Amino acid sequence: MNSLYVIKIGGNIIDDPIQLESFLKDFSELEGYKILIHGGGKIATKLSKDLGISSELIEGRRVTDAESLKVVTMVYAGLINKNIVAGLQSNHCNAIGLAGADGNIIRATKRPLKTIADGRQIDYGFVGDLDDNSVDAQAIFKLVQAGFTPVFSAITHDGNGQLLNTNADTIASVIAVSMSGLYTTSLVYCFEKSGVLRDVDNEGSVIKNINPEEYKELKNEGVIHSGMIPKLDNAFDAISKGLNEVCIGKADALPELKDKIFGTRLKS
Amino acid sequence: MNSLYVIKIGGNIIDDPIQLESFLKDFSELEGYKILIHGGGKIATKLSKDLGISSELIEGRRVTDAESLKVVTMVYAGLINKNIVAGLQSNHCNAIGLAGADGNIIRATKRPLKTIADGRQIDYGFVGDLDDNSVDAQAIFKLVQAGFTPVFSAITHDGNGQLLNTNADTIASVIAVSMSGLYTTSLVYCFEKSGVLRDVDNEGSVIKNINPEEYKELKNEGVIHSGMIPKLDNAFDAISKGLNEVCIGKADALPELKDKIFGTRLKS
Repeated sequence: MNSLYVIKIGGNIIDDPIQLESFLKDFSELEGYKILIHGGGKIATKLSKDLGISSELIEGRRVTDAESLKVVTMVYAGLINKNIVAGLQSNHCNAIGLAGADGNIIRATKRPLKTIADGRQIDYGFVGDLDDNSVDAQAIFKLVQAGFTPVFSAITHDGNGQLLNTNADTIASVIAVSMSGLYTTSLVYCFEKSGVLRDVDNEGSVIKNINPEEYKELKNEGVIHSGMIPKLDNAFDAISKGLNEVCIGKADALPELKDKIFGTRLKS
Repeated sequence: MNSLYVIKIGGNIIDDPIQLESFLKDFSELEGYKILIHGGGKIATKLSKDLGISSELIEGRRVTDAESLKVVTMVYAGLINKNIVAGLQSNHCNAIGLAGADGNIIRATKRPLKTIADGRQIDYGFVGDLDDNSVDAQAIFKLVQAGFTPVFSAITHDGNGQLLNTNADTIASVIAVSMSGLYTTSLVYCFEKSGVLRDVDNEGSVIKNINPEEYKELKNEGVIHSGMIPKLDNAFDAISKGLNEVCIGKADALPELKDKIFGTRLKS
């Protein structure tokens, strides 16, 4: 099987033009098949503010009402996605920018109402959740084999004409797992840190490799805690579903991927 | 050769949700290979106004400054394009929404400075002009043959990372001519009228067929005049470059295309 990288970048890169330009160059130079998934960043928040749209926050999660959905569709699927594609094309990477509705590639389910502690029913609005069957791997395969490099924004659809806002980390994971039957697939999360750190204040303390047994130990020792636990739980879950590996590290270290020394590598 | 329809819709349909829904259903039911190109409509103008962005009008043409380019990229390539794609998918049409940067499919040249009558040099900003080599027909062919129905917004790029705002009528024409070596291609313009009218006040006076000789006569008689002349000049120019036919009519008459009784047909 050929190899495939599924690489996710977040707002910290998108919001920084110099970092983004450098990342797009590195991504373009990465050899082999690849897919990019990008998050949002601060542009949508600023645009909402400029337009006087204030969406509700419930238990730390932002509600995507109809007006907020328009904003994220404009910013993620339009402004950010097309500028990333134009940047990649200028680096001779044959990018094709997509949302989940395109080619019916990512079909999500609108999040059902949720009953919270005080008995209230919460409607998170136009938020789309994914399951193991949400991604049409064959459609992506056709695009990749035709020489295109898909670049996904985190806008999906329900198949009935409704666009939905979906978590970009989840999209990356579900795409990677779905592609793992067709390619030896590595999922790469670019985030603020150089990797999983033994000492959170020391960027030099990257733990180079972790397998499930070591993960258990690191949790028991308290080295891995709080926010990293759901992240790594998801990563090992994806590996158990057929993914080759998950790499977590800093975007500017992307050239190190080819030598397998990028950030932290999670393997089965 | 297989047949291909290249269909362009304008703002009058995009701004009317009921008309748009009905058009997307008719488009989906149209048999055979097809490509959709959409213009903008009033949403971008309203968004600019809401954001306090006022772009200059020079000799009736709007200057696309950096802020205006952001707005049209968000609205055309994001909001409108993805909602059209989701609508087509809900009608079981396997649409894939694209801007010209995607797959490097439409490469434009930034319009050069223009010296106007009073000697001033005018910069139209981030406006992209096309020529006969702007469209990568092979890239579109690959997508169409893979089962996708391309849906283009009127945002192009220069190949060096710069997005550009381009006239949607021109995009439709250049795409259609470029595809005419691969398919028997019909270009279809949907506009406000039922076709080229013998009497502009009578929607029943559609001239069914026009060839270049008849066009000359109709111009001499003064039946075709003012705004229709550049439109039809362009259409006959496209036909002379290999296009099978150009059809001009009302969007809601689209089902008549298959019986070749839609609006006005221009043929060589």
